[in-house]
Amino acid sequence: MTTVGILGAGQLGRMLALAGYPLGLRFRFFATAADEPAADLGPCDVGAYDCAADLQRFAATADVVTYEFENVPAAAAACIARRTTVFPPPAALAVAQDRMREKRFLQGLRLPTAPFATADTAAELTSALAAVGLPAVLKRRRLGYDGGGQLHLRCGADAAAAWHQLGGEPLVVEGLVRFRRELSIIAVRSRAGQVAAYPLIETRHVDGILRSALAPAPDVTPDVEAAATDYATRILLALGYVGALTVELFETENGLVVNELAPRVHNSGHWTIEGAHTSQFENHLRAILGWPLGSTEPLGCSALVNLIGVAPPAAPILALRDTHLHLYGKLPRARRKLGHITIRAPRPALLHDRLRTVEHLVADATTRPQ
Amino acid sequence: MTTVGILGAGQLGRMLALAGYPLGLRFRFFATAADEPAADLGPCDVGAYDCAADLQRFAATADVVTYEFENVPAAAAACIARRTTVFPPPAALAVAQDRMREKRFLQGLRLPTAPFATADTAAELTSALAAVGLPAVLKRRRLGYDGGGQLHLRCGADAAAAWHQLGGEPLVVEGLVRFRRELSIIAVRSRAGQVAAYPLIETRHVDGILRSALAPAPDVTPDVEAAATDYATRILLALGYVGALTVELFETENGLVVNELAPRVHNSGHWTIEGAHTSQFENHLRAILGWPLGSTEPLGCSALVNLIGVAPPAAPILALRDTHLHLYGKLPRARRKLGHITIRAPRPALLHDRLRTVEHLVADATTRPQ
Repeated sequence: MTTVGILGAGQLGRMLALAGYPLGLRFRFFATAADEPAADLGPCDVGAYDCAADLQRFAATADVVTYEFENVPAAAAACIARRTTVFPPPAALAVAQDRMREKRFLQGLRLPTAPFATADTAAELTSALAAVGLPAVLKRRRLGYDGGGQLHLRCGADAAAAWHQLGGEPLVVEGLVRFRRELSIIAVRSRAGQVAAYPLIETRHVDGILRSALAPAPDVTPDVEAAATDYATRILLALGYVGALTVELFETENGLVVNELAPRVHNSGHWTIEGAHTSQFENHLRAILGWPLGSTEPLGCSALVNLIGVAPPAAPILALRDTHLHLYGKLPRARRKLGHITIRAPRPALLHDRLRTVEHLVADATTRPQ
Repeated sequence: MTTVGILGAGQLGRMLALAGYPLGLRFRFFATAADEPAADLGPCDVGAYDCAADLQRFAATADVVTYEFENVPAAAAACIARRTTVFPPPAALAVAQDRMREKRFLQGLRLPTAPFATADTAAELTSALAAVGLPAVLKRRRLGYDGGGQLHLRCGADAAAAWHQLGGEPLVVEGLVRFRRELSIIAVRSRAGQVAAYPLIETRHVDGILRSALAPAPDVTPDVEAAATDYATRILLALGYVGALTVELFETENGLVVNELAPRVHNSGHWTIEGAHTSQFENHLRAILGWPLGSTEPLGCSALVNLIGVAPPAAPILALRDTHLHLYGKLPRARRKLGHITIRAPRPALLHDRLRTVEHLVADATTRPQ
């Protein structure tokens, strides 16, 4: 029996395991704490990412190791790679977890990005803003997640305040992209080199956190769909990538702009569990095991609603037709992703009616005193 | 967080857990050995069904207890019911696990069954055969499963040989029903009294073991569908049942005949994971937790192929469109259910093409030297 080791034991690890058990796989997780969402679904080794002995002990138990978040230290991934197979390749992780390397990598592929410049010193920040222009966003080069570690700059005074807050560590300034909407595309490449992409997804963020998504994204022209698939495929090939990769995009007047990469299954793809022939989780596992990829075609149209901070009562959600509740087994906390709901419908009009109903139920739970 | 305790830790327990984790549930299993298919998906308490202390310790850890096979001793279920909630009700279990009580119960509801009579002694066997006629089947009253503990009687000489083999324990003689085909229907009743039924399923057995199923069963008249739903509903109500119940049926020239009941999710319903809006596993959990039931409508048409004794290599199966592999994590052994494959298609003709391809791959694995 093949054992898949997963670095991290959050909801992505949990959903990977739920997708993988039917394939006859076993799972083992590595986490810094035992009470993580995936810990019910397989043994969880508690250890430190900077302890080679912990990592090697974990590596010895798994036939292949993957990760469910992009902030696994590159050195930890490399340490495990000395002992067992690791996919996606640690080199891809190193690119995706450093905004500056990521931007330069995309530039090297001639993919459109926001203008950018490093801002590691106050002097560099000034010249970066001169080069990039205002408005702009000042971001940490590393460890950003769900909008954390980034500040919007509208004028010179904002820059001084932002420097006060973030300055001193490696930073990057990005020009603000005027976009119509945000999109994402999830593509998968297998060990055998097979590539498959899900359709473009429309994503809606509030305070830097994904709130909802529509898949396939409505009103996408064939040109835009083809461009997104082409971008994702070129990125996969350039990185020698194996597994699922997410490309976050802006749709602008002048076409698609790449925002950032996530070297893993992605929140915007959770609808694929019910809404596609093969889920992103199953396809990630098929890819890293060298198995044939499954069809990424959608089944009708789907909407995804994240449960942030508060989960609504289950019964009214479960009573809705074609509505699937996913809870991650986490305790409520502000800005925490506790679960998601996927709504499926044969036609967009029906989907929007059902989505409105779900959004009302979720909003009611959020505003009700706890 | 709600913990569901499951008596038994086989593949049905495994699939219940896989369906229940997304609902935010936790699972705990009770089994007589630790290396069972569900043991990766939750803590597994190893104990004996005749040890009250083992059972009560298990009951204390669960908010609600259910079972995944019908041969849980009724006394064990009753013992647990003194400590926590148990669904389906132990009284229903007692009916389903004794062929004689089951037949009398069905007779009480005026549902058509094969003619039957007890055969606890050699004299009773003779008079039973006189009453029922030949051909007939001699069966153990209890602990029958996958065709075990039953012998076909074609003539008086068969009766003597069969008595030699099975005689001495409680037996029942059933008249052989001439049927066109075998069908099953899975219906669910919730704690709130809501009832839902899946469409009729055509089942195909070889040597008493389910080999394949088609759902919805092709060429079913509305009258037959309505009769099956009516039978299942009357059985659920008469038993005060909560959970999923399977009614195995013969389709004869004179309509449906009830063969037997399974007070649980059922092998013939595994297609519901991909082929229905809500799977039998999720609906069983919703039912025992008092949540609204999900839609039992099928998504297109589905076929199910069991993997008996040998599992085919995964890659060629995974390469097929709309084909879903489910392995139970068991070691190969003759007559053992190692997994199943579900094939889904929008139209019956396409389904049959895909089914033929899968059946060839499965047959190849079965005949290849191991």
